[in-house]
Amino acid sequence: MDWADELKWDADGLIPAIAQEAGSGDVLMLAFMNREALARTLHTGQAVYWSRSRQRLWHKGEESGHFQQLHELRIDCDADVLLLKVTQLGHQPGIACHTGRHSCFYRRYADGQWQTVEPVLQDPAQIYRR
Amino acid sequence: MDWADELKWDADGLIPAIAQEAGSGDVLMLAFMNREALARTLHTGQAVYWSRSRQRLWHKGEESGHFQQLHELRIDCDADVLLLKVTQLGHQPGIACHTGRHSCFYRRYADGQWQTVEPVLQDPAQIYRR
Repeated sequence: MDWADELKWDADGLIPAIAQEAGSGDVLMLAFMNREALARTLHTGQAVYWSRSRQRLWHKGEESGHFQQLHELRIDCDADVLLLKVTQLGHQPGIACHTGRHSCFYRRYADGQWQTVEPVLQDPAQIYRR
Repeated sequence: MDWADELKWDADGLIPAIAQEAGSGDVLMLAFMNREALARTLHTGQAVYWSRSRQRLWHKGEESGHFQQLHELRIDCDADVLLLKVTQLGHQPGIACHTGRHSCFYRRYADGQWQTVEPVLQDPAQIYRR
């Protein structure tokens, strides 16, 4: 993977990856990848991240069913950030966040507070019951 | 800034911030903010980051003239990533990247290579001559 050697992996061997919804352009989430996560993402066509909290590969959707189909992979000028264009799959499509919302960026700053501006589309208790 | 205490600043006191173009939805870049950068961004209405390479506050556009006007600030579910919706200002608007391109994410993965898919809109030698 010569092309992977061009990336600037951090001290933990990770690189941040922004997931953006193809079509809408909505920014869904930011997670991290190591080399194996990136290789699996390209091989399977579905987003695979490295979970820093669980310290293991995380095939996004493995528990929730909310997989991400990869359409395009981009790298920034400094080669230290990835941008994935994805379709957010699932029994109920379009839910990227573990809170059951479309995007993880569902809180907006206003008047000195973080205000929730996106609805819960599916109850997390239902998402993670399976 | 109670609302800033809700953010998860990393060990260096930083938080990653994604800049997304309002309207088009194009992801322009990712940079970092410390508390002062965030406070100045909200106070001035223009993006101010923390430059890790120069270890100082970086009012985006201070050298290039390519300022970013803030429209909306969001935070993700884990409170460890910011999303800024901005208008990319400048003598020639719409140029976020120091290479003179619209977005820093101008290279796309294809067939084992990173292929440049966005044109240079302004020669960097011109941008940084001023």
